Amino acid sequence: MSDTESSIGSGQVADYIPDLVKADPKQFGFTIATVDGHVYSVGEAHTPFAIESISKVFALALVLSRKETPIWQRVGREPSGTPFNLLIELEAENGIPRNPYINPGAIVVADQLLHDTGNGLEALHALLRAETGAADLQVDSVTVESEEGAGDRNRAMAYLMASFGNMINPVHQALDHYFRQCSIAITCEQLAKAGLLVARDGLREDGSRLLHRADARQLVALMTTCGTYDAAGEFAYRIGLPCQSGVGGGILSIVPGKCSVVAWGPGLDAKGNSVAGAVALASFARTTGYSVF
Amino acid sequence: MSDTESSIGSGQVADYIPDLVKADPKQFGFTIATVDGHVYSVGEAHTPFAIESISKVFALALVLSRKETPIWQRVGREPSGTPFNLLIELEAENGIPRNPYINPGAIVVADQLLHDTGNGLEALHALLRAETGAADLQVDSVTVESEEGAGDRNRAMAYLMASFGNMINPVHQALDHYFRQCSIAITCEQLAKAGLLVARDGLREDGSRLLHRADARQLVALMTTCGTYDAAGEFAYRIGLPCQSGVGGGILSIVPGKCSVVAWGPGLDAKGNSVAGAVALASFARTTGYSVF
Amino acid sequence: MSDTESSIGSGQVADYIPDLVKADPKQFGFTIATVDGHVYSVGEAHTPFAIESISKVFALALVLSRKETPIWQRVGREPSGTPFNLLIELEAENGIPRNPYINPGAIVVADQLLHDTGNGLEALHALLRAETGAADLQVDSVTVESEEGAGDRNRAMAYLMASFGNMINPVHQALDHYFRQCSIAITCEQLAKAGLLVARDGLREDGSRLLHRADARQLVALMTTCGTYDAAGEFAYRIGLPCQSGVGGGILSIVPGKCSVVAWGPGLDAKGNSVAGAVALASFARTTGYSVF
Amino acid sequence: MSDTESSIGSGQVADYIPDLVKADPKQFGFTIATVDGHVYSVGEAHTPFAIESISKVFALALVLSRKETPIWQRVGREPSGTPFNLLIELEAENGIPRNPYINPGAIVVADQLLHDTGNGLEALHALLRAETGAADLQVDSVTVESEEGAGDRNRAMAYLMASFGNMINPVHQALDHYFRQCSIAITCEQLAKAGLLVARDGLREDGSRLLHRADARQLVALMTTCGTYDAAGEFAYRIGLPCQSGVGGGILSIVPGKCSVVAWGPGLDAKGNSVAGAVALASFARTTGYSVF
Repeated sequence: MSDTESSIGSGQVADYIPDLVKADPKQFGFTIATVDGHVYSVGEAHTPFAIESISKVFALALVLSRKETPIWQRVGREPSGTPFNLLIELEAENGIPRNPYINPGAIVVADQLLHDTGNGLEALHALLRAETGAADLQVDSVTVESEEGAGDRNRAMAYLMASFGNMINPVHQALDHYFRQCSIAITCEQLAKAGLLVARDGLREDGSRLLHRADARQLVALMTTCGTYDAAGEFAYRIGLPCQSGVGGGILSIVPGKCSVVAWGPGLDAKGNSVAGAVALASFARTTGYSVF
Repeated sequence: MSDTESSIGSGQVADYIPDLVKADPKQFGFTIATVDGHVYSVGEAHTPFAIESISKVFALALVLSRKETPIWQRVGREPSGTPFNLLIELEAENGIPRNPYINPGAIVVADQLLHDTGNGLEALHALLRAETGAADLQVDSVTVESEEGAGDRNRAMAYLMASFGNMINPVHQALDHYFRQCSIAITCEQLAKAGLLVARDGLREDGSRLLHRADARQLVALMTTCGTYDAAGEFAYRIGLPCQSGVGGGILSIVPGKCSVVAWGPGLDAKGNSVAGAVALASFARTTGYSVF
Repeated sequence: MSDTESSIGSGQVADYIPDLVKADPKQFGFTIATVDGHVYSVGEAHTPFAIESISKVFALALVLSRKETPIWQRVGREPSGTPFNLLIELEAENGIPRNPYINPGAIVVADQLLHDTGNGLEALHALLRAETGAADLQVDSVTVESEEGAGDRNRAMAYLMASFGNMINPVHQALDHYFRQCSIAITCEQLAKAGLLVARDGLREDGSRLLHRADARQLVALMTTCGTYDAAGEFAYRIGLPCQSGVGGGILSIVPGKCSVVAWGPGLDAKGNSVAGAVALASFARTTGYSVF
Repeated sequence: MSDTESSIGSGQVADYIPDLVKADPKQFGFTIATVDGHVYSVGEAHTPFAIESISKVFALALVLSRKETPIWQRVGREPSGTPFNLLIELEAENGIPRNPYINPGAIVVADQLLHDTGNGLEALHALLRAETGAADLQVDSVTVESEEGAGDRNRAMAYLMASFGNMINPVHQALDHYFRQCSIAITCEQLAKAGLLVARDGLREDGSRLLHRADARQLVALMTTCGTYDAAGEFAYRIGLPCQSGVGGGILSIVPGKCSVVAWGPGLDAKGNSVAGAVALASFARTTGYSVF
């Protein structure tokens, strides 16, 4: 993994969320969790970081676990254009975001989860605690404050969706939930274990079924086409595995039926993806032959 | 005024703001107030209606009355495209609205007025009461509720501007002020008297100067190019006078150095301007020869 | 006119059209032509320059002179957003440009004129020659080449309109005409005389009527709201007269019923309007009291 | 393949290109070509149809086969927004299309191929003839006429790119090549054989190398994220194989290292993809277990 080693420390720590800028870009962690129960970790795999956009996968899983969810009437399943275009797209498409992994889509999913459960954050916590065995999983209150302080563009998109009738809860409540959901502190090992839910096609750690196979497969397909912001094409080419990235520096990758992998390094590239994490996952995909391509 | 008579009752009462839909489209009022003190009224010139966007002229007047106001760094002075394009324009132009009479521009002005005065609504009330002699001018609380209930798009634009650093006050406070400012109940006669402030090139009713002549002239130029939403071209052609229109059905028109005219009829055309009001003003402009063209 | 004098030589000569960049920015000409037949000129009022966008007024006049012209089904009458937004507006509004003075609108007018007359350029030449008495009015072939060389964005807009069915002639023919129309070489004095057509409410120099009064008035209203590109608001405020500007450095201004004024100086401001020309017209408007405001 | 059978005849034949509308929607063909030389066909696998957008893969392959091609400075590799947004994206991103499989991107590739080879169409023909063994592969002249007749939006995009300096050849020449490239008539069996070039990671039928493995992999990654227009997400989920679709009703799918598959049926869904073709490929992916997900 010499490529990975030399890339550790590269990139810029996210600075739009004040709390994240304090992270040490030289940190790095990596965990592979297999569907047959093995867990392999290197580096700082037990250091918690902000889950950020990777939470979107689990929030969507919970929403999809409800029978006859209306979520696909509220959000699309196609890749989106540039961040610059998000407001234009929302406007032109009547407040329906293009997919659940761009911010406005994830806000709609959070809004649905809040409506479905009454307490979306608790539901998400309960799921992550059960899958990881980590009873002490917490929202980082400093990250929440940072998210709230930097959240005006998310508020603009949420109110625009509300103006089209695509918000159920009051906007501030849905965003409150969304900001907290993004601020859950989690480690590589915990996140890789939680990802097994998807790798096992929807089966939970205790063997019960959370999702239909088709819905788990949808999560993975969406990660491939929409999981790495504006770099989905680059990731498809370089890594060839479905990935979901977060500005906390984590990347979750799924090899369906085989394993869940998490790489973490806080230094980000210009599109918001972990530099060291992407290099490590490319190396993993090449070495294992798990790459799709 | 037979054209005017036959147009009374035409158009649709604004329905996006629930309270306005209750207005009787057959109502009509018209007042001419001259700079030498005469006031001529016909019809229901003493029936209060919601001032709506016409308040933008007076809020801007108060902001411009401050020496060295930063307002022209925060908002432009050029016509805007379609309502469809407002969010795109804000995005492409870094949160600087194109002029103070489109909603995002008026929100910036309201934000500045709130900052300048501490209590923007009281400042506006004080101005309007003094110019009209109407001590009982009030915000209509039912209209406020309607504005708030229909305000999500305004919220989206305000938060987008905030994300670019172009809001001073918390967004909800600025909007609170803005919604109340739009909900002032006023009559044709009161509004025409208040408009004399502009017709007199910035002189108040008591002879003191509120605005420099150049700033009063700016108000009028902006009414010509931006005062009637997406119909500025049509108004320039049909009426040939600077007009500021509100979805309450009022239209304020200024003939600098001569008079201030208000026409009111709640039935609106597709672009949100009073049908009967526009016909009456066209008739007035033609008859008096005051039309610019 | 000391303001004007000190502004002569300011601004940048248009550089996107290679031929125009050769103009001497210190040149300046000014002509007032009155409806009762007087012509007053100062400076280089007999030096020809490229008419550019000012030709749009006369092309539209010819199109409007036809009974039952379909032109207002093909182009709107409202101000437009930024140049950045032109393609977005065309797309969102199904290939109907917002007004006849932005480039796509003028291309539609040129297309209609070509269709109406068979030889639009000859029709335009004939009109300008008759109104100015200048038998030798010519297209400058070097300017045509420059226009063609820099015309890809105009081609993009014309083909986009064609894709919506809003072009009658083959695009290359309509553009051929349009580029030539913009390349007519004309002097201040000639242009001011031609402008009298509009100042006289549609009457030609020989007393015959080319346009209905209402159509002449429409030309003037459109100049006010749309005649100076992205600076209509600034011109309304500073000058208060309807103006049509061209990147050749000319500005035509109309005082209906009184006179036609042309100022020319090749140095342009950032929005493409003549710096010295605008200063001279502001001075003229202030001195004569003809300003609308 | 009962799902496939019942879907044959569904959908609408492409009507924006007049020639395509004549196709019989009940036709259906399917071919699997394996890297070890087997070819399996069912249905009308020997009926030629218009290759349309599937040609983009082979044009890009030829461009990538040149050492140090500048193509990735001229076009991106990321998914795009809606067709509605294509012009906005081009404008906002300075004439650089987001990927080589949307039309403006494919026009840039065609322009590069024309520049690289002098005769791009002949180069493409030579490649396809060699890989398929079909010496008589031809451009369908009726399809060319149809493409040209419906090509105004492509022209608009090409001229917009030219205005940003992103076209090498005169626009009409590049488009001439592009329209012909899309009009090559090819059968399922021929196209599947040609696709082996990609399935073999860049090796030609004669064993020589056209592309580096990494470039072949790039072709496949791009098919996954961008190959099915505005339905990439839906295809990733339903089929889980990289696909390139054409409005002639063909879909090319690649299983790297294993096989190349072509399904053809002229009835299209709302997003322009073959209804029967997509059902057949979903069935193939499920049956073989080749689906990525």
